[in-house]
Amino acid sequence: MSRNLANPSCVLYAARNLVIEDRPVPEITDPHYVKIAVKKTGICGSDVHYYQNGRNGLKVVKSPMVLGHESSGVIAEIGSEVTSVKVGDRVAIEPGIPSRYSDAYKSGNYNLCPCMVFAASPPNNGTLARYFMVPDDFVVKLPDHVSLEEGAIVEPLSVAVHSCRLANVTFGDRCVIYGAGPVGLLIAATAKAYGATEIMVVDIFDDKLELAKQLGATHTYNSSEDRGASEDDNRTFQLAAFGGNVPNIVFDATGVEACITAGINLIKVGGTFMQVGVGKVKIEFPMAAVGNKELTVKGVYRYSHDDYRLAVKLVGEGKVDVKKLVTHRFTFDHAVEAYEVVSQGRAVKCIIDGPEDAE
Amino acid sequence: MSRNLANPSCVLYAARNLVIEDRPVPEITDPHYVKIAVKKTGICGSDVHYYQNGRNGLKVVKSPMVLGHESSGVIAEIGSEVTSVKVGDRVAIEPGIPSRYSDAYKSGNYNLCPCMVFAASPPNNGTLARYFMVPDDFVVKLPDHVSLEEGAIVEPLSVAVHSCRLANVTFGDRCVIYGAGPVGLLIAATAKAYGATEIMVVDIFDDKLELAKQLGATHTYNSSEDRGASEDDNRTFQLAAFGGNVPNIVFDATGVEACITAGINLIKVGGTFMQVGVGKVKIEFPMAAVGNKELTVKGVYRYSHDDYRLAVKLVGEGKVDVKKLVTHRFTFDHAVEAYEVVSQGRAVKCIIDGPEDAE
Amino acid sequence: MSRNLANPSCVLYAARNLVIEDRPVPEITDPHYVKIAVKKTGICGSDVHYYQNGRNGLKVVKSPMVLGHESSGVIAEIGSEVTSVKVGDRVAIEPGIPSRYSDAYKSGNYNLCPCMVFAASPPNNGTLARYFMVPDDFVVKLPDHVSLEEGAIVEPLSVAVHSCRLANVTFGDRCVIYGAGPVGLLIAATAKAYGATEIMVVDIFDDKLELAKQLGATHTYNSSEDRGASEDDNRTFQLAAFGGNVPNIVFDATGVEACITAGINLIKVGGTFMQVGVGKVKIEFPMAAVGNKELTVKGVYRYSHDDYRLAVKLVGEGKVDVKKLVTHRFTFDHAVEAYEVVSQGRAVKCIIDGPEDAE
Amino acid sequence: MSRNLANPSCVLYAARNLVIEDRPVPEITDPHYVKIAVKKTGICGSDVHYYQNGRNGLKVVKSPMVLGHESSGVIAEIGSEVTSVKVGDRVAIEPGIPSRYSDAYKSGNYNLCPCMVFAASPPNNGTLARYFMVPDDFVVKLPDHVSLEEGAIVEPLSVAVHSCRLANVTFGDRCVIYGAGPVGLLIAATAKAYGATEIMVVDIFDDKLELAKQLGATHTYNSSEDRGASEDDNRTFQLAAFGGNVPNIVFDATGVEACITAGINLIKVGGTFMQVGVGKVKIEFPMAAVGNKELTVKGVYRYSHDDYRLAVKLVGEGKVDVKKLVTHRFTFDHAVEAYEVVSQGRAVKCIIDGPEDAE
Repeated sequence: MSRNLANPSCVLYAARNLVIEDRPVPEITDPHYVKIAVKKTGICGSDVHYYQNGRNGLKVVKSPMVLGHESSGVIAEIGSEVTSVKVGDRVAIEPGIPSRYSDAYKSGNYNLCPCMVFAASPPNNGTLARYFMVPDDFVVKLPDHVSLEEGAIVEPLSVAVHSCRLANVTFGDRCVIYGAGPVGLLIAATAKAYGATEIMVVDIFDDKLELAKQLGATHTYNSSEDRGASEDDNRTFQLAAFGGNVPNIVFDATGVEACITAGINLIKVGGTFMQVGVGKVKIEFPMAAVGNKELTVKGVYRYSHDDYRLAVKLVGEGKVDVKKLVTHRFTFDHAVEAYEVVSQGRAVKCIIDGPEDAE
Repeated sequence: MSRNLANPSCVLYAARNLVIEDRPVPEITDPHYVKIAVKKTGICGSDVHYYQNGRNGLKVVKSPMVLGHESSGVIAEIGSEVTSVKVGDRVAIEPGIPSRYSDAYKSGNYNLCPCMVFAASPPNNGTLARYFMVPDDFVVKLPDHVSLEEGAIVEPLSVAVHSCRLANVTFGDRCVIYGAGPVGLLIAATAKAYGATEIMVVDIFDDKLELAKQLGATHTYNSSEDRGASEDDNRTFQLAAFGGNVPNIVFDATGVEACITAGINLIKVGGTFMQVGVGKVKIEFPMAAVGNKELTVKGVYRYSHDDYRLAVKLVGEGKVDVKKLVTHRFTFDHAVEAYEVVSQGRAVKCIIDGPEDAE
Repeated sequence: MSRNLANPSCVLYAARNLVIEDRPVPEITDPHYVKIAVKKTGICGSDVHYYQNGRNGLKVVKSPMVLGHESSGVIAEIGSEVTSVKVGDRVAIEPGIPSRYSDAYKSGNYNLCPCMVFAASPPNNGTLARYFMVPDDFVVKLPDHVSLEEGAIVEPLSVAVHSCRLANVTFGDRCVIYGAGPVGLLIAATAKAYGATEIMVVDIFDDKLELAKQLGATHTYNSSEDRGASEDDNRTFQLAAFGGNVPNIVFDATGVEACITAGINLIKVGGTFMQVGVGKVKIEFPMAAVGNKELTVKGVYRYSHDDYRLAVKLVGEGKVDVKKLVTHRFTFDHAVEAYEVVSQGRAVKCIIDGPEDAE
Repeated sequence: MSRNLANPSCVLYAARNLVIEDRPVPEITDPHYVKIAVKKTGICGSDVHYYQNGRNGLKVVKSPMVLGHESSGVIAEIGSEVTSVKVGDRVAIEPGIPSRYSDAYKSGNYNLCPCMVFAASPPNNGTLARYFMVPDDFVVKLPDHVSLEEGAIVEPLSVAVHSCRLANVTFGDRCVIYGAGPVGLLIAATAKAYGATEIMVVDIFDDKLELAKQLGATHTYNSSEDRGASEDDNRTFQLAAFGGNVPNIVFDATGVEACITAGINLIKVGGTFMQVGVGKVKIEFPMAAVGNKELTVKGVYRYSHDDYRLAVKLVGEGKVDVKKLVTHRFTFDHAVEAYEVVSQGRAVKCIIDGPEDAE
C-alpha cells in the first residue's frame, strides 16, 4: 500500500514494466523551489508511448523513470525565498523547467529551451509520486472553485492556449480542428473563448464529436464517411459540414497525413495552419498549396510564458469545462491498471489520484 | 519585321508554336489607365513552361495568348484621370491587376485576389507586344539612372521583396537561400539590403554561386557535393559551409523536395521557412520538425502592396545590382529564338527588346 | 409631411438651422452602387457638433449638408454589376467611401484614405434622407434576427471593433475604458467578446455605469469621486475599484485630459493605451511615463476593412446587446426635435426613423 | 594614484562631490558570474544629472554610489559554471541585471523588470572601478577588430537598436530623428543599417548635424532656424529640408516638447513615433493628431534581449562607426575633471580609462 511509503513513486523500468516503489523524499535546496504533494495526475499520450514501448519517438527510457507530467497538488513546503505561494495552497504544476540563462527563456519562448528539464521525459522523473518539486513561478494557484482534478488538466489545456495564442485566434475566426482527443477538444473550447465564432471538430468517432459539441464546437464532421473519396470530394463534404464556411485557421491535433492534407485543402487563401499533433517524421504534404494560397504553417511545441496562467483562468472563468474530458479515474495503487486501460482503449482523459488518497 | 506592324505581339498558339503577329492597338477606355510602349521584357520560368508545354501546372493555354510579364516601358498615352505619370515617363510595369472590390485587395493583400488578371496567365494576354495597358497605380516610375532593362527585372525582384517582407528579415538575421536562379539570387541581395548579415546561397552550379557572391551572399554551398549522404551529414556539411551559423530564416527558391528537407533540417529552433519556389503538388516533408522546432512555414505568392515600389527603390539605391543577372539579350523579332535558348540552357535572365528597337 | 416628398432630407444650413426639404432622388450611375431606403439613423456626437456650431473641429459646414451617418436600410435598387445583395435586403450602411486607388486603401487601411467621402462630413451629404447610395461592398446584410435599429448602431460598434482589433484584445486581458458614452460602452462589450476577462468602465454618471455593467463591464468606477485628489490618490482609488488588477490595455473614449492622464498612470508597464475619444488639439500629457513604462499609445480613427462585417457579427451572435443603448426614438418628421434633445441632454443613443415611417 | 589601490572606484557622495577611493575587490559567489577588469567607460547624460544634482528625475543618491554604466573590459575571473567566456576575453558589459524570475524577464522584455539592478542607478553601484561583476550572459565578446573604446559605446548603441527594433525599421523607411546627441546619432546610423533610405537628423548645432551626416543621415535640419515660426511653418520648413519626404517613423531623442510636437506634426498618417528621449514629466502634446492620423506612439526604455549582441554586431560589421562620437578622453585619475567637462559643454561622448591605465 503506497500510503505507508515515504515517497511512493510510479516507476517505469521498461516497456510494460511499471512498478510502484518507494523513493527518497526530495529536499528543497534551491530557495526558489516548492515541494508539492501531488494529488491528481492525468495520463497523456506520451506517457502511454513510454509505457507501451519504452520510448516516445526519439526519446528512450534508458534508466528507471517516474512517469506523469499532468499534475496538480498542494504545496507541502516552500523554499526560503518563496513568497508567491504558501503551504496548503492548491496549485497546477507546470512540469517543464527551462534554464534561466538560455536564449530561448530570455526571448520569451522557454518552451524552446535546449536545456529544458521536463517531467517524465527521459532521463527526468515525472510527477507520479507523493512529492514533486518545481520553482514557485512554475505553479499556478487554483481558484477556490476549481478542483484539483481540473487542475491536472491545465497541462493539456496549456497546449491549447499556446496553439490559439500562436494562431492569433480572435473574434469572428472560423476554425477547424482535426482530432477530438483531449488536445483537439481543448483547442475547440479555447478557440471559442478567444472569440472564434464557427468551430468544426473532425474525428472518426461520433461520441468524441458529441463531446466536442458539448465543449463548444458549432459543427462536427465524422471523417470516416469520406474515406476513399478524392481529396476534392472530401473538401466538398467538409465544407458542407461547416455550413459553407471556409476556415481561416485550421488546427491539426492528430499528426495524421490524411488530416493534414485535408486541412491544407480546406483552409482559406492567406490562412493559418497549426501543427499541434505529433505524427510521423515525414509525411506526404501538399506544399504547392502553401505557396499558391500563401498560407502560414506554424508548429506548436508545448507551452510557454503565461500559457499556464491563462489556462487556469480559462477554467476559473468557466470558459472550458475540462471536467467533461475525464472518463476514467484510478487510485495511485492502481496506476498500472490505469495505464493498461488507457493503452487499450478510447479513454478521453484518465486521472490517477495521489498516493495519500490510495487504499 | 515587327517595326512595320501596328501592335506586333508575340503570341503562343500551342506548345512550341510561338509567332509574332499584328494585333489591334489597345485603346484606353478606363480613365485610370495608361498605355505603355513596352521596351524590355524578361523571360520567366513560367513563360518557358507555357512555351514548352502549353501549360504551367494547372494553367493551360487554350486560346492564343501573348507571352511576357516582366516588362518595362515608356508611357505612350494616359487616361483622363491620370496625374501620377505623363507621356514619356519610363516605368516598371506591374503585370497583375486585381479587382478593386475584392476582399483580398481591401485587406492589403491583392496578390491573393481571386479575380486577378495577370499578364500571360491564361486566358490573359501578356506584355510581349508593342503596347500594354494597366491602371496608373500599377506602374512605378524609374529614376533617371535606372535603365529600362533594370526596370524589367523589377518584376522578379518584387517577389524577393515580398519574400523578405513576409519573412520580416531584419538586421543580424542569418539567411540561407536554396536555389541560385533569378529569384533566389534576388532574395540574397534583397535580404542583405534588409539587414541580414550572414547569407548563404545553395545551388549545384558553381557559376551561379559565384554570381550569388557578387550579389551579396556571404557564403555559398554547392549541394551537388552532398548527394548520397544522409540528411544529418548534409546538415553538418551545410552548417560548416555557413561558418557554423544556424540560419533563423531559410528561403526555398527551388520547389525541390531535397532542398526543402535540407532547409527544414538546417533552420534554427523557432525559425522561419519561406516557400518561394514552385514544385510538385505534393512532396515528402519533415512535418515533425515543424512541430518540434516550432517553426513557421510561410508561402510566398507573387507580390502585393508596395513591393513593386520598394523593388524599384532597391535598384535605385544601388542595393541590388540586377544588371548582373542578364546573360542573354534578343531583339523582339528574335523572340522565338530567345525562348528556345532559355528552354535549353542555363541562362540566368534573358531580355527581349520591345518591337520599336527591332530590326 | 415627409412621406409626400420624393427624397425628404434633413438638411443643415447653419448652426441650429436644420430643415427637412425635398431633394432629387439619387440615380445609380456606377454599376457597383446600390440605392438604399434608409430606415434607422442614430445621432452621433459629431452630428450634434455640426447642429450646434455649424462645425466639428476644423470641419466647417459651408453649404447646406444632409446630416446623419449611422444608418441602416433596405436595398431599393442595385447597379448592373451588383451580385452580393438584392432589392429588399436589410443592410447596415458603411458611411465612408474611400478611393479605390489610394495607397491607404491598397494597404488595408482605407480609413486613412485622404480622398475619403464620408457621410455628413462637409461637404458630403449624409444619410438622413429617404435614399442613400454606396457601393455594394459598403453594405453588410443583417441576419434575420437583427433589427434595423440594431443595424444603425453597427456604425459606432465598428469603432469599438476597430479599437479592440488595433489593441489586440485577447483572452485574459484586463481593460479599463474611460467614458461611458456609446463608444465607450460598445468598447466594453466588444472587449468582452474579444476575450477580456476584467473590464472596468469609468464615468461620472452612475446610470451610465449601470448600463456598462449590463453590457459586460465587470467593474465600474465613478470618477467624480476622485476630483481634487492627487493623481497618485486617483490611481489608488481606481486600482482598488478594479479589484487590484492593473490594466494592460486602457481605452480613452472621452478625449478629456484628466481621463487620459489617469489612464496612463493606471496602465501596466509595457501596456497599450488606445486614444479613441476626440478632444482638444493639445493636452497636458504625461509623456515621461510613456518612456518609463515603455507604453504603446495608438490612435483610433473610424474603422476599416472587416470592422463593419465583424460588428454585424457581434450583434448577430448576441455578443453586444446594442439595443440597450437606445434611450430615445423620433420619427423623421421630428428629426429637428431629436437634435435638440440630444444637444441638451444625456441621451445615450437617439434613433430617427426613415421618412417612410413618419406621420 | 588609483593604480596602487585594490579596487579604485569613482564614488559620488553628493552633488559635485565625486571622489576616487578604494573599495573591496568583489568576489564571485554566484557560479554564473564573471569579474571584469573595466577598461573604458563612457559618460552618459544620466551620470551627469547625478553628478550635478545628486539625482536624476525621481532617483536620488542617498548613499555613496559608484558612477558609470557604459563600460567594456577584460574578463579577470569566471565563476565555476561559466563556459561562454574565458579569462582575458574582451567584452562589452550590459549594466542592468534583471530578476530571472520576473514576469518581464520571462516574457522577453527584461528591461521592464521591476527588480532590475542597474549600474549607477541608486542604490546600485556602477562600473567606474577596477572591477565590475555581472552574469556571463550579460557580457558580449568583442570581435578582435573592435576596440574596447568602441565596446563602451555599445551601451548607448543598444538603446538605438532597441528603438529601431521596436519601431520595426525596415528597407525603404523614411525616418526623422530629433536630437543629435549620442543616442540620436546612433539611431540615425542604426536606422540606416536596418534599411531606412531617407534619414533626417534635426538639432540646433551645425557641428552635430555634420556628425550626423558622417554617421549616415541623408538629410539634416537646424531647427534653431524655425524658432518663432508657427507649427505649420515649421512643418513646411522641415518637410522641405527632408526633400519633400513625409517620414513614416519619427524618433524623439530629446524629450523636448517643441521637438515632440514638431515630430507628431511631421509624421505620415498611420506612422510611428518613438519616444526615446527623457524630458519633463508632463508636456503639452498634440493628442488629437494621434487619433486623426491613427499614429502609434511607443516609449523606449533601455534595451532588452539580443539588443546588446546586435549592437556589438553593428559595430563589428562596420555599420555604425561609434568612434566618431568620442570627443574627449580622460584617465581614471582624472574622472572628476571628465565629469566637470561634460557638465559644462557640448562633448558628444567622453570616455574614461580604467584605473590600470591611469598615471
